[in-house]
Amino acid sequence: MTELTSALAAALPGGRVLTDPDVVDSYARDRTFVPPGRPLGVVLADSRDDVVATLQWASEHRVPVVPRGAGTGLAGGATAVDGCVVLSLARMTAIRELSPQDEIAVVEPGVITADLDRAAREHGLMYAPDPSSYEISTIGGNLATNAGGLRCVKYGVTRDSALGLEVVLADGRVLNTGRRTMKGVTGYDLTGLFVGSEGTLGVITAATVRLRRAPREVSTVAAEFTSLRDAAAAVSAIVAAGCQPSMLELMDRTTLQAIDDWKNIGLEPSTKAMLIAQAEGPADAMAALCGAASFVAVSSTPEEAAELIGIRRLAYQAKERLGQCLVEDVCVPRSVLPDMITTIEEVAARHGVMIATVAHAGDGNVHPVFVFDRGLAEPPEEVWAAADEVFRAALDLGGTLTGEHGVGLLKKRWLGLETGPVAAELHQGIKQVFDPLNILNPGKAI
Amino acid sequence: MTELTSALAAALPGGRVLTDPDVVDSYARDRTFVPPGRPLGVVLADSRDDVVATLQWASEHRVPVVPRGAGTGLAGGATAVDGCVVLSLARMTAIRELSPQDEIAVVEPGVITADLDRAAREHGLMYAPDPSSYEISTIGGNLATNAGGLRCVKYGVTRDSALGLEVVLADGRVLNTGRRTMKGVTGYDLTGLFVGSEGTLGVITAATVRLRRAPREVSTVAAEFTSLRDAAAAVSAIVAAGCQPSMLELMDRTTLQAIDDWKNIGLEPSTKAMLIAQAEGPADAMAALCGAASFVAVSSTPEEAAELIGIRRLAYQAKERLGQCLVEDVCVPRSVLPDMITTIEEVAARHGVMIATVAHAGDGNVHPVFVFDRGLAEPPEEVWAAADEVFRAALDLGGTLTGEHGVGLLKKRWLGLETGPVAAELHQGIKQVFDPLNILNPGKAI
Repeated sequence: MTELTSALAAALPGGRVLTDPDVVDSYARDRTFVPPGRPLGVVLADSRDDVVATLQWASEHRVPVVPRGAGTGLAGGATAVDGCVVLSLARMTAIRELSPQDEIAVVEPGVITADLDRAAREHGLMYAPDPSSYEISTIGGNLATNAGGLRCVKYGVTRDSALGLEVVLADGRVLNTGRRTMKGVTGYDLTGLFVGSEGTLGVITAATVRLRRAPREVSTVAAEFTSLRDAAAAVSAIVAAGCQPSMLELMDRTTLQAIDDWKNIGLEPSTKAMLIAQAEGPADAMAALCGAASFVAVSSTPEEAAELIGIRRLAYQAKERLGQCLVEDVCVPRSVLPDMITTIEEVAARHGVMIATVAHAGDGNVHPVFVFDRGLAEPPEEVWAAADEVFRAALDLGGTLTGEHGVGLLKKRWLGLETGPVAAELHQGIKQVFDPLNILNPGKAI
Repeated sequence: MTELTSALAAALPGGRVLTDPDVVDSYARDRTFVPPGRPLGVVLADSRDDVVATLQWASEHRVPVVPRGAGTGLAGGATAVDGCVVLSLARMTAIRELSPQDEIAVVEPGVITADLDRAAREHGLMYAPDPSSYEISTIGGNLATNAGGLRCVKYGVTRDSALGLEVVLADGRVLNTGRRTMKGVTGYDLTGLFVGSEGTLGVITAATVRLRRAPREVSTVAAEFTSLRDAAAAVSAIVAAGCQPSMLELMDRTTLQAIDDWKNIGLEPSTKAMLIAQAEGPADAMAALCGAASFVAVSSTPEEAAELIGIRRLAYQAKERLGQCLVEDVCVPRSVLPDMITTIEEVAARHGVMIATVAHAGDGNVHPVFVFDRGLAEPPEEVWAAADEVFRAALDLGGTLTGEHGVGLLKKRWLGLETGPVAAELHQGIKQVFDPLNILNPGKAI
């Protein structure tokens, strides 16, 4: 340990600070290829007090702090920077309270998202936000990125379930935002400001989240199409008919192939796209709207439905087996989803790049995954060029760079195209108010 | 006109600036008793350019600007201050776009809320947020206060329908926040920051709002109870049973009496409370959960339902007939709603104050209306004392000062009790970033 990290260790209970280079390195990355800097050490926080002590020390010594949940992020938001301390919240896993009467829970940031959902379901409730990673990602990380998921199309994103936060500010002071109630407008919306701020404004040490009544009957449809555009058209038809799906997921051929190669799902050669739709109540209407499908299956049991959705949740891991992945997360107005998808196919062909696409299609949120050789430190030129074209096409279609993953480091070069100079100045002004020494996750998000 | 207002008039097209004292006075108040200051004049903005010119002039001359929609606010947020210019957005009434495919609309701030809802319904959609005032209040005012309404229990508050904003900043620069898509996490949540900021951070000149599929079948239950607590218990039972009401409104005897005196609704002497509940699908389950009711009616036609809800929407105007009103807007966790209501009854009795209460009961949002003599300039001592006790009781129960009306001027004396000194410092820091000269609605909200 250096003098600096020894001072940190002295300010914390024993065993909280790790400095072994190999161990530290394992906390330096998220799930992107983005090469990390070299941290001074890692703090494994066990409590709010640990976070307070760490930030007081960091403020005193002007050390950058990179907060971290499970490291499942896809934008480089938790990538370590040189000379930082990585602050892991993964050990703060308490569900402090779960009130079925008030339909809320108070949770620590290290709680695994699906664990909270399971705890809620014991009371007939659910925690709605469900990023694909929800079995391995944490509530804290979900809050930091304002994570979306498969059920957003009906229940909204993480922000829509966050009622209040306990936050440790850069200087170690503790702030409580929001409330335990369903509504409330006292003061500015600080809760909303922290959610999605990617650890640049404060470190979340607890959250009061909204639970919702779990639906009693859910039906699931899986449909296979011989063209991706036909599948996208079925998405529009299902939304326009007012089916109010709680899930509407689209996978392209490349994605399905990667899953089939791994798990042998019996993919037909002619299948170019699969749609998985879920809604409360009967599925007949949704199935009927998949008229152009080559195959339609309605699941009759929850087990069958879970299996179908399980296939979808494997998509990203299946792609990681093919190589390194640059994951985009564009979101466009629903009416132009077919145009967005066509553009992605054209860009892939023109640049000779493998792009495997899944979409939370009901939200217009598309994940083109650019796959490149494992041996490379960075994506090759043609991948960056293709990625650039896809980002710009999304903006031209009235969309956004990132629907749910965040900007992190990966999308910073495009940020200005979307937000413009006035917003950039306001972002910096807000950052200055919360973190005048610029120690919280510097260089990320804004 | 003074030299100052002449310069303003010269910067705007003809007829935009009013300085006649009687006319100006009619723009100086909202719907509260709070005594206004004396404005220099009123600007009737017709366009974003008018707002830009007004704010450039105001910045140059350091003149406070009080933005204003329809003046239906209940917290003094639009109350004029001495030497200000009142900036009315009421003439900016264009629905710039309504896209049924994307389920969004782009609207100017002066659009009457119910007009947008009606425009959406022509396409099978609705604009969900519906403050009781929605036939007279504007979208801009709703955004500024983050207004709630009757349907929030199912569809959320104004924030939950706001996707993006066009805002003129204090110095006249134009900012676009958010997006046209259902999801998006690029940059900090500036949209959320402006919504509910009560005109202290910028002037909203357009909003992209989310529309939702209008329910096809809605059933409505009205139940009368001989005790308020029984009615509150029925609220809990309906929520706990998972009926997912889209409306769950409670009125006490004093409120019902005021409505009956005005509109002769045939109120029974024994009735102490009425509950109006609405849900998609059949109403039998909700009706059955009103077991303690003295009378239960299920509406069989939309006209009957509209009549029942119409009674509820008259509540505030009926109370204004009794005298001047100090309106509270506390919100508590649903499980303690009966305690909140009992406290209000006790406080009214102890202080000898008339309190008429309605509640968006499904949200735990309670409006105790303290009625006092029309001749008084300010509420008498005992009304302030009673109001103070109710605010403190709400906070003690884990609630908030304001569920949907905002802080304005009326609640500023209690603000610190809820937010505390750290949040207050951050609020001021944010205000400084957006409005360094403190010209935007100074003294309000934070």
